[in-house]
Amino acid sequence: MAREFRPANAQVHLHKIDPKDTNGTVNDAKLAQRVQERMKELYDLHYLMFAENKRALLIVLQGIDASGKDGLVRHLASGLNPQGVKVWSFKQPSDVELDHDYLWRVHRAMPGRGEIAIFNRSHYEEVTVVKVHPELITRQNLPDELAHPKSLFRHRYRQINQFERMMTENGTVILKFFLHISKEEQEKRFEERLRDPRKHWKFAKGDLLERQYWEAYMDAFQDMIEHTNTGHAPWYILPADNKWYRDYAALSIVVSTLNKLNMTFPTLKNL
Amino acid sequence: MAREFRPANAQVHLHKIDPKDTNGTVNDAKLAQRVQERMKELYDLHYLMFAENKRALLIVLQGIDASGKDGLVRHLASGLNPQGVKVWSFKQPSDVELDHDYLWRVHRAMPGRGEIAIFNRSHYEEVTVVKVHPELITRQNLPDELAHPKSLFRHRYRQINQFERMMTENGTVILKFFLHISKEEQEKRFEERLRDPRKHWKFAKGDLLERQYWEAYMDAFQDMIEHTNTGHAPWYILPADNKWYRDYAALSIVVSTLNKLNMTFPTLKNL
Repeated sequence: MAREFRPANAQVHLHKIDPKDTNGTVNDAKLAQRVQERMKELYDLHYLMFAENKRALLIVLQGIDASGKDGLVRHLASGLNPQGVKVWSFKQPSDVELDHDYLWRVHRAMPGRGEIAIFNRSHYEEVTVVKVHPELITRQNLPDELAHPKSLFRHRYRQINQFERMMTENGTVILKFFLHISKEEQEKRFEERLRDPRKHWKFAKGDLLERQYWEAYMDAFQDMIEHTNTGHAPWYILPADNKWYRDYAALSIVVSTLNKLNMTFPTLKNL
Repeated sequence: MAREFRPANAQVHLHKIDPKDTNGTVNDAKLAQRVQERMKELYDLHYLMFAENKRALLIVLQGIDASGKDGLVRHLASGLNPQGVKVWSFKQPSDVELDHDYLWRVHRAMPGRGEIAIFNRSHYEEVTVVKVHPELITRQNLPDELAHPKSLFRHRYRQINQFERMMTENGTVILKFFLHISKEEQEKRFEERLRDPRKHWKFAKGDLLERQYWEAYMDAFQDMIEHTNTGHAPWYILPADNKWYRDYAALSIVVSTLNKLNMTFPTLKNL
């Protein structure tokens, strides 16, 4: 049995983590069975959370293009009652969204008590893609004195940490998954997308152009994790070159987190 | 000419501030003209803000029942282009709202760039009415370990300060007005409501019951101002027994705040 999955520690260095790591786990029939059992456990815990109606769970997925966010969303949501789960894909902000602070659309999408929300991309785009492409800041219509990249990202790290702390202090448990793939694996997946007409829609010319910023993205992700890996809202780095391991690790972390909440069913007298 | 209106200072004591104070101002024809001039100035500043599309203004009104919040909303909004102003009256939270953190509905209502929002009551209900009636906490469905009144309000003061700071760092200017009336003035206004059939709807039996909590409310307001009077989002205490003075003071503060922003019209080349 592999050791417990742990949040990133303070000295995390992405380039020291092997995206192919599987922590000694083997993708065999026994694992398939364990995954099935945990899926059942997740379903039951979600049911309990829905009944208790006190806590919410937010799962944030970040990672570069083709790191497997969509696949992980499908995997996690497959074990959940659709009534209590909401998936939000944060694309480029709309005009109305840009007219508000960057946490506005995120806060709206936060799960209610009893619900699980999965964010496919999130407010962390604001300290990663915007950091790699600082020209995006001008689109955000900030007053000049608030738009200096040097202080902007520092402020955003603090704002995000404080926002997430507020959420947890009001009953929302937060798990953040960074999907860590290698540059070679990304290339392989892009090529698959190009070969399969059913996957062409997922491909944009920009995706290839973005590859030249690979190092800048890795630096931005590294900084993001360093500055926003908190006790109340930890980052988990999922080695994600192997899809089965990415899925298994995420599922295990979600189940073990929910188990630790000691949730209880309301009894008749409390109704 | 009266001295400039200033935010509450760190040693503020509500019971030392006379609700009838008018700071030497006389309600005469000259004042009426000054109000008219400032209304025109407010309209122009609002137009500039709308054109610039970088900043937003949030005006928060708090005060006990009958302190004049509705009247002040009407006064301020009368000088504004309805296209760029939104008034939100925060009543008892709905079930969906209670299923989220208490800042959820407030964040949704935040003004977009170019807009002015007026909050008639606000997130500050959560540290005043809920503090006076701590049994309301149980309605909020918080996990037990997060529902201790002792830490709850302390945490909320911090959460509110951090939330408001985040808003200001993203371009929203925040002004908070506390409408300070005397217990006698409240009684007078309740009696008016009872006499005037067109005002009966404003009156609820609960209003009279709440009067027995007057001191508890004053303590809660005092604590609220002490803990959330910040440089980025100051409280202004408006002596409000005289409606004309309350209106004049608020208008003057809004105009002088907007004037200090040094907003500019976008020029053709920036379009």
